Amino acid sequence: MSHRIALASDHAATAMKAELADWLRAAGHDVLDLGTNGPESVDYPDYGYRLGKAIETGEATFGIALCGSGIGISIAVNRNPAARCALVSEPLSAGLAREHNDANVIALGARMIGIEMAKACVTQFLETAFLGDRHVRRVEKLSNPERSPA
Amino acid sequence: MSHRIALASDHAATAMKAELADWLRAAGHDVLDLGTNGPESVDYPDYGYRLGKAIETGEATFGIALCGSGIGISIAVNRNPAARCALVSEPLSAGLAREHNDANVIALGARMIGIEMAKACVTQFLETAFLGDRHVRRVEKLSNPERSPA
Repeated sequence: MSHRIALASDHAATAMKAELADWLRAAGHDVLDLGTNGPESVDYPDYGYRLGKAIETGEATFGIALCGSGIGISIAVNRNPAARCALVSEPLSAGLAREHNDANVIALGARMIGIEMAKACVTQFLETAFLGDRHVRRVEKLSNPERSPA
Repeated sequence: MSHRIALASDHAATAMKAELADWLRAAGHDVLDLGTNGPESVDYPDYGYRLGKAIETGEATFGIALCGSGIGISIAVNRNPAARCALVSEPLSAGLAREHNDANVIALGARMIGIEMAKACVTQFLETAFLGDRHVRRVEKLSNPERSPA
């Protein structure tokens, strides 16, 4: 099954982003590259917000967010209630993110894991289905904070 | 240095929360336990939002968010712009979260890492200072999305 996948990174992760983009395109996915694409130092929140917006508008179904540790950009993406971004470093978490949280974005740390681990995480993420059931109410609360008691 | 630290978890992580709370109190920290504290199945967003609110109000300086994978509750905490929550599974990321992102909350997966690894992450998190400098502008953007270009 092919997807429309948005990729965003800061300057610390452009090489990993480019390699993942080529690999995803070769697998038949439609890739939306939201930058950055130069060596200049940029601010990861700018790119995280772009990715959140692409998920919110439906421009992309899934997203991959990259920075040095994956932490900063994962926080930025999750500022958008339409995004459910899981920072992962191994495939077990990438699968759980889909099964339990219906995650639509994964964040990876380009200075923390290598390209093959990154690909293994993305593969597990794209191939795992949301379990639904009791998880539905929780996922709805993630995008509708007013449904949680104060 | 002692801190006021808020802890929140769902039912999958109450044992780890209790052990971390005892350990933090023994180290002289002031611990605010936001629940859950029973075996009943609860919704992790409810507890993540409580933790974000405790950070927003200043009731706690730091927070520790726990669920089975750490993913769901980390997303919930990051819905609050006052919170900067890093999902980590090892101390290097816990330190980078403070140095680069001035993270005020870490999320841990109680079904992913053991108690000693969790303590090592918390220790590194509490003992590492924010680096400031170029990171300040990025951190400010995390709490003020309007400062990023559309």
